[in-house]
Amino acid sequence: MAVIVQKYGGSSVADTDKIMNVARRVVQTVQEGHRVVVVVSAQGKTTDSLIEQARAISANPPKRELDMLLATGEQMSIALLAMAIDSLGQPVISLTGAQGGIMTDTQHTKARIREVDGGRICSELAQGQVVIVAGFQGVTNANDITTLGRGGSDTTAVAVAAALQAEVCEIYTDVEGVYSADPRLVSDAVKLDEVDYDEMLELASLGAMVLQPRAVEVASVYGVPIHVRSSFSAERGTMIKEVNVVEREVSVTGVAYDENCAKITLAGIPTDISALHNVFSSLAAEGVNVDMIVQAGTSTPTADLTFTVAREELDTALAVITRIQNDQSWKVVCDEDVAKVSIVGAGMMTNPGVAARMFEALSEEKIPVYVVSTSEIKVSCLVPRSRYQDAVRACHRKFELDLGN
Amino acid sequence: MAVIVQKYGGSSVADTDKIMNVARRVVQTVQEGHRVVVVVSAQGKTTDSLIEQARAISANPPKRELDMLLATGEQMSIALLAMAIDSLGQPVISLTGAQGGIMTDTQHTKARIREVDGGRICSELAQGQVVIVAGFQGVTNANDITTLGRGGSDTTAVAVAAALQAEVCEIYTDVEGVYSADPRLVSDAVKLDEVDYDEMLELASLGAMVLQPRAVEVASVYGVPIHVRSSFSAERGTMIKEVNVVEREVSVTGVAYDENCAKITLAGIPTDISALHNVFSSLAAEGVNVDMIVQAGTSTPTADLTFTVAREELDTALAVITRIQNDQSWKVVCDEDVAKVSIVGAGMMTNPGVAARMFEALSEEKIPVYVVSTSEIKVSCLVPRSRYQDAVRACHRKFELDLGN
Repeated sequence: MAVIVQKYGGSSVADTDKIMNVARRVVQTVQEGHRVVVVVSAQGKTTDSLIEQARAISANPPKRELDMLLATGEQMSIALLAMAIDSLGQPVISLTGAQGGIMTDTQHTKARIREVDGGRICSELAQGQVVIVAGFQGVTNANDITTLGRGGSDTTAVAVAAALQAEVCEIYTDVEGVYSADPRLVSDAVKLDEVDYDEMLELASLGAMVLQPRAVEVASVYGVPIHVRSSFSAERGTMIKEVNVVEREVSVTGVAYDENCAKITLAGIPTDISALHNVFSSLAAEGVNVDMIVQAGTSTPTADLTFTVAREELDTALAVITRIQNDQSWKVVCDEDVAKVSIVGAGMMTNPGVAARMFEALSEEKIPVYVVSTSEIKVSCLVPRSRYQDAVRACHRKFELDLGN
Repeated sequence: MAVIVQKYGGSSVADTDKIMNVARRVVQTVQEGHRVVVVVSAQGKTTDSLIEQARAISANPPKRELDMLLATGEQMSIALLAMAIDSLGQPVISLTGAQGGIMTDTQHTKARIREVDGGRICSELAQGQVVIVAGFQGVTNANDITTLGRGGSDTTAVAVAAALQAEVCEIYTDVEGVYSADPRLVSDAVKLDEVDYDEMLELASLGAMVLQPRAVEVASVYGVPIHVRSSFSAERGTMIKEVNVVEREVSVTGVAYDENCAKITLAGIPTDISALHNVFSSLAAEGVNVDMIVQAGTSTPTADLTFTVAREELDTALAVITRIQNDQSWKVVCDEDVAKVSIVGAGMMTNPGVAARMFEALSEEKIPVYVVSTSEIKVSCLVPRSRYQDAVRACHRKFELDLGN
């Protein structure tokens, strides 16, 4: 009998009514002839309120203890959901991350799943039970509770689906699926029927918040099909899976944007290798993630180096730069009023001129482009933040994404 | 180095200030040269609010899932207390019941501890850490989370102390120790310096809420000295331990009372064995605990059988009685306006006339006595609820308990 893994986020279990709604959905899936494993997050704002409690006691609580505290959030929601499913007459059992065999490394608050030991889940399924597994948490070999950090529950769901060789991993969310652009910005954005893993990874990384990049990565490695769909409707959503690129006619699948950017330019930095290495290894040592990196004028002894960081990391980044700058003669310029707009499509690499069409769309709207960065399946442009919505709409129109894929 | 186990109840960790207070107390004990294991309950009203959440979803939630939910209460408080102790610079680690090796049977919501596997606790202590263990919870051999029911945290503390052969198990509470009577009723009640295990067991069972009978039982079996003391003062409280009875001069240690009683009389019940058996086995089958049992007039073919139950179980008990009564000719009389007053003392059995003095005290106050029940170390009288406070004071005075032991 086929196993389906369903993942419900915190907003889907925020109150008693919503929990009952999820319970009915799970029972219906069982009645349709499936074995079901449910992965669930902490209710609504539980995690935030637990973090607040911790901060009231200590500005810098030990990460192991923070994990001990945060893990209670999902433990509550699995128990409550189990009670709801039981009240509908369906045999059910809830398992913490540790009981569910979610084995992780020891990096508290941002652990990575090393292995899913599916023994207990399988034996409970075999007894006809719906199995509810706590998302976002796991356990180390030394039996210490860990949490997986941002996007952890999606990753739990996909990893469990991979371990059980599930037919599909359904990710329930408050939107109908993955769209060609944010429907709040682009009124004729269309829901995509299917998206390739790599495209989804780019879309997710570039700001489409519907799914976490980590989860897409795991799904891609293990070939787990992900179905992103709404918890409030029975409509089919978007399938994320291996798509045969050769048959693809369109080149661009979607437009994404990310407002959470800040641009830093080091003007007049020496072009020798050690300068670049020095800058980025110092930033990495402080945990600053650098996104786009562009350097112009490498044939001269000095050049202008530009890169972007998340806005909340700008202060840290500037502190690092100031420290390593010493009395060197660079000039540091930063700009917070920027946003990144990207077009993504697995077909892009076989279609020349895609970047050119994007620039055309932006120039027709008189939107300046500060920084460009490309990969095999995306082109990203940094634009003034005040114009990013126009940029998204212009690209969506230019690539005729309203016609569907 | 000597190990001390300290147990703090829910009111001792109810908010951030109180948690910091407990943390300072723990660190001070370490600085006095002890290894410390801390057992802690859920904060304040957490458990009640979790039960409310469960009831909102299901009138009759599966007990395993209720345990899964309730166990989050202590998991939160151990994490928060660990953060507080860490913030004072003291190495510390928190352990859930499962991690702490609290192995129980499989009776969810009222599991009994089968064994404490102290391996992890010992190795953390050996590394110089304060170890915080979640009270009230444990784990079955199948790795399912259980809770211990009423008085569970006290029992955890004593069981851990027994496993570690701790020097003492300190139970912190909001009173200064065990008193000769409830100080709210008897203004000259005195704090007892030491109390024998058996006496404490009777006092605890008879309504002195300072300590749970289960915990006293375990302490008695393993010879763990318990120190009941206030979390708000440094004063010595009451030591509960094996007291050499031969040397005891006084016969009565304390007076206890229990308002939570209801009396049921079956008038004209047949005196043959099967009737008695039928009544009490039927009550037991419904989980009704029966306390005092008295039967008068066994030489006649019928007699009056009187017993007491907890008030919240009166309705269930009456339903059982009605069911087994059928058309038999007993008359059922019940009375909720009663209370039980008891005198307790290990020296009682070597001192004749103790019961007589109690009756004298009550008769001087013109307090009627409905039912009497005695054991080797206590005499209990059921009196009108409106008079129980007078009865407690009369006994306290009669046995001169204000002079101390």
